Amino acid sequence: MFQDFSAPKTDAGDPARIEKLRAAMRAAGVSGFLIPRADEHQGEYVPAHAERLSWATGFTGSAGMAIICKKKSAIFIDGRYTLQVRDQVATDILTPINSADEPPEKWLEANLKAGDKLAYDPWLHTINEVKKLQRAATKAEASLIAHENLIDQIWDDQPSPPQAPVTLQPLKFTGKPAQEKIKTIQDAIKEMEADAFLLTQPDSICWLLNIRGRDVPHTPLALSFAIIHANARLELLIDPDKLNDKVTDALSDHITLKTPDDLMPSLSAIKGEIALDPATTGQVFKSHIEAAGNEIIEKPDPCLLPKAKKNTEELEGSRQAHIRDGLAITRFLSWLSREPLENLSEITAAQKLESLRHEAGDQEQMPLKDISFDTISGVGANGAIVHYRVTEATDKAFSKDTLYLVDSGGQYQDGTTDITRTIAIGTPSDEMRRHFTLVLKGMIAVSRLKFPKGTNGAHIDAFARTALWHEGLDFDHGTGHGVGSFLSVHEGPQRISKISKVPFEAGMILSNEPGYYREDHYGIRIENLIAVNPPAKSEDGEREMMSFETLTFAPIDRALIEPNLLSVEERDWLNAYHREVFDKLSSRLQARDKEWLEAATRGV
Amino acid sequence: MFQDFSAPKTDAGDPARIEKLRAAMRAAGVSGFLIPRADEHQGEYVPAHAERLSWATGFTGSAGMAIICKKKSAIFIDGRYTLQVRDQVATDILTPINSADEPPEKWLEANLKAGDKLAYDPWLHTINEVKKLQRAATKAEASLIAHENLIDQIWDDQPSPPQAPVTLQPLKFTGKPAQEKIKTIQDAIKEMEADAFLLTQPDSICWLLNIRGRDVPHTPLALSFAIIHANARLELLIDPDKLNDKVTDALSDHITLKTPDDLMPSLSAIKGEIALDPATTGQVFKSHIEAAGNEIIEKPDPCLLPKAKKNTEELEGSRQAHIRDGLAITRFLSWLSREPLENLSEITAAQKLESLRHEAGDQEQMPLKDISFDTISGVGANGAIVHYRVTEATDKAFSKDTLYLVDSGGQYQDGTTDITRTIAIGTPSDEMRRHFTLVLKGMIAVSRLKFPKGTNGAHIDAFARTALWHEGLDFDHGTGHGVGSFLSVHEGPQRISKISKVPFEAGMILSNEPGYYREDHYGIRIENLIAVNPPAKSEDGEREMMSFETLTFAPIDRALIEPNLLSVEERDWLNAYHREVFDKLSSRLQARDKEWLEAATRGV
Repeated sequence: MFQDFSAPKTDAGDPARIEKLRAAMRAAGVSGFLIPRADEHQGEYVPAHAERLSWATGFTGSAGMAIICKKKSAIFIDGRYTLQVRDQVATDILTPINSADEPPEKWLEANLKAGDKLAYDPWLHTINEVKKLQRAATKAEASLIAHENLIDQIWDDQPSPPQAPVTLQPLKFTGKPAQEKIKTIQDAIKEMEADAFLLTQPDSICWLLNIRGRDVPHTPLALSFAIIHANARLELLIDPDKLNDKVTDALSDHITLKTPDDLMPSLSAIKGEIALDPATTGQVFKSHIEAAGNEIIEKPDPCLLPKAKKNTEELEGSRQAHIRDGLAITRFLSWLSREPLENLSEITAAQKLESLRHEAGDQEQMPLKDISFDTISGVGANGAIVHYRVTEATDKAFSKDTLYLVDSGGQYQDGTTDITRTIAIGTPSDEMRRHFTLVLKGMIAVSRLKFPKGTNGAHIDAFARTALWHEGLDFDHGTGHGVGSFLSVHEGPQRISKISKVPFEAGMILSNEPGYYREDHYGIRIENLIAVNPPAKSEDGEREMMSFETLTFAPIDRALIEPNLLSVEERDWLNAYHREVFDKLSSRLQARDKEWLEAATRGV
Repeated sequence: MFQDFSAPKTDAGDPARIEKLRAAMRAAGVSGFLIPRADEHQGEYVPAHAERLSWATGFTGSAGMAIICKKKSAIFIDGRYTLQVRDQVATDILTPINSADEPPEKWLEANLKAGDKLAYDPWLHTINEVKKLQRAATKAEASLIAHENLIDQIWDDQPSPPQAPVTLQPLKFTGKPAQEKIKTIQDAIKEMEADAFLLTQPDSICWLLNIRGRDVPHTPLALSFAIIHANARLELLIDPDKLNDKVTDALSDHITLKTPDDLMPSLSAIKGEIALDPATTGQVFKSHIEAAGNEIIEKPDPCLLPKAKKNTEELEGSRQAHIRDGLAITRFLSWLSREPLENLSEITAAQKLESLRHEAGDQEQMPLKDISFDTISGVGANGAIVHYRVTEATDKAFSKDTLYLVDSGGQYQDGTTDITRTIAIGTPSDEMRRHFTLVLKGMIAVSRLKFPKGTNGAHIDAFARTALWHEGLDFDHGTGHGVGSFLSVHEGPQRISKISKVPFEAGMILSNEPGYYREDHYGIRIENLIAVNPPAKSEDGEREMMSFETLTFAPIDRALIEPNLLSVEERDWLNAYHREVFDKLSSRLQARDKEWLEAATRGV
């Protein structure tokens, strides 16, 4: 089982640790210390040794930062964690603050005193973050000081950094040799008039070098750094214990392998200007490069866009992964329809789904490498909690006449999946059916869109919402995120959201996941992954239009669809989709599941 | 007749004038001079004495700039004028350039030589423009020099600036006394931590002071400047010959009247920081203020947003103006349906429409003050030219089985209108009906939208296009622009376009005008004005949603609608709209027109 359902500790964090930290602050002569939930690679998942925020405060959420001062201290979280944080931290010594209400910079401005020295670990904060913090400190006439990590000084049994083995991602899945990718990026670096680019984001490095790892949960990352020289061999800075001989040999063919300890000396050795992405690169690098007398060029990570635009092989891999995943989902839904309610809980359902993903992967000799995130498995009111993670403490038994929302995904070597289905348990109310159909209308509207080059996520986000808006309803998350190719399930730069300005380009994979959440009652979300088709001219058309290819194939619960609320075009889309689901999956299913699928994909 | 149909001169501009200018350049010791199509107020229409570009080059388009150098010279125009410019300017001495392909700054970078002195009139270029020009000159190692206008030195019979009388706009139309508006803006200036705001845009001044003028065509502007002091009486700098005793008395009650000659001394007298909008304010002011040792705060014009958000009285005025305007349009369409084809041409039709607007205004004691822009009256292929202006040279007789596009508007004291209708002449083809219906679907989609607070034009622009996009079609203009209250027919800051980021707010008036243009064949555009309704909760809804109120009432040609292409909701919208058109207009029409309207608004 990749998913761990043990409940996070809810006895508020050990105040003794904060006291120890304060002692370390006094010894270091500083008046405050920042504890972000981040490692030096700024990814969504951090390895155990970097879980400093949870060690120090008890808070286990996936994003947040504590500011510990001599007396007043605060922990900044987002809307997802406003309840959880109160269970987990000692609120008498650490005030929880929703950073949407008061971002850390504002709090610092108000709470730092003239002359205060605020320390931070420059490996853990990006250049852009430090700019903001610096402005706040300056306004308060305090100083911001880069410092060794004080948590590491006091954390006795801090785990070691991960050393999971690196594997080579074969050409049949990447579609492009690393040498070719590196050449393209080197050209981009020359365009920037830089001599090298410093990469600190492992998903860019893994994509660029066609390698994968297992250093963090759910995303096959090999934590490492890279220096891409415009006119020399790329340097990969990685713990050599992660590399077996075969991998070492393959990589040494075209890149130079170094250890992370070589990072600063290698940077110092560069003659010329070094480009880096200030949004994702630690402040430590800026300070080091500038101290060495080199100039920095701030540019977006040049791997972002080519990584997002999947090539033919990556798209084909994704299609295969989605059929495999669709089989697991179909068997799961078929099982769910038969299983007596009393056997079912959020955890047993999530476990069954994971085991079916393993099974489907094994059958096809494409084993499930991981789930792509902790499955969101929510019955009734739990489904209305957008980022719900079931644990033994919250696990809810299935009951009649409610909805079950399951958002899950798999990591296969040929692709990353992410799918949400909402299922009627028992007999759904008219209201549930109406709400579900409004959400479905939004999902179909996005799926059916044609649009010219230049269209971005902000231009189409509303199509997922208008049916809901018309009824005075909405959902409080974006409509879609980018998805990697056996990499991060959340990948930029494209998104479908009100603020996304990145134009869609052929090959980009996105989620399409409108929802509706009736607080304390039920949640609805329907999610397919879609890929951007290249511009094409239709027979009668004058201009080339882009469109989306649907990648996800699994039935959408007909029991929740009110056909009268669908337009002819929407009904046509749904029926065609269900026909395709049946055509793609039925031949690989056993009789019982095939029969179930036949009924589940019948026309409405 | 407010519209002048005389053809612009097409004998290419008199090269002797360019030669005279070059002599003036030599005398002034400069190597180049800029001639923008602009006056010192940066409005859409400029008075005759400021038509320097057309005097010097022959080009009469509404936007453009010439750069005259010792040898090489160019005139920059946009896509609308690529053909016209070749008829009007001496292309052997002045190279026409589409500024979308090569903006003036790029051209200057490439063509200025080190040491060149490029002169410009600082009254005619905004601060932001000069920043761009300065960057280009610096790159070329040339210098940019503010200079007296060289055209004014050589233009012997240059007209005098306009002196049209100023009128007071009554409270029943403005809804708010000037004193109250000034107070609000003064508060905004204090928020900016400025001591005064310099206003150079006459539409802001006219809105703020509840005055109107007649200094330029089609927009009731009184050209003037204003200094709004945060803590003292507002100074209006205006030619006193424009003010009669009544107006002078009324204004003197709460503001200080000065002449334009007092402008610079008044600015110099200010103790403190002066705010201004660099996007619309001439460079001359920046130079003057800085020379006087004062600091400038660059801020958007604080009148923009309150001017855009119409109050109850302004909205009510607009509704009345639109019913009056709808009567004129209805009578026009009824007349068009009866008039023998051989009597009809683009000009006779436009003239008839203007005379019917006069008639409708006179009947209601709300005389037509002007048309709000030159009527676009295009038959067949002329309708496909988006910014077509009919002249005696292009006037086309009506013929059978084609489309007629008419885009027009009126300036009444209670409101500004803007409406486009496309009419079948004879029997439309299936293709015309299909294209018209696709455009109509877009118009209806925008009209029917409900949306939450924070939604902007970029979020909804695509709704006007998806029906077209689906067929590989599109149109190359925004979907809608803001409209003033007896002021500019093009007013910011809100728009419906791919790049608009200004959230819709209650009371904003916008056009909703998707189109489709089949080059060399026909043009289709359907335009209503709409006003933003405040957020409201529906009975079943959970959240407040905003929506649009349709202001324009005139029939949409049923002969061009293919009902099978409309959804139930779209058909319902159309039929309800037509019922409302009939209900609002029929009682004021004579029998013949009423009968025509009854048929024209029948359900589909």
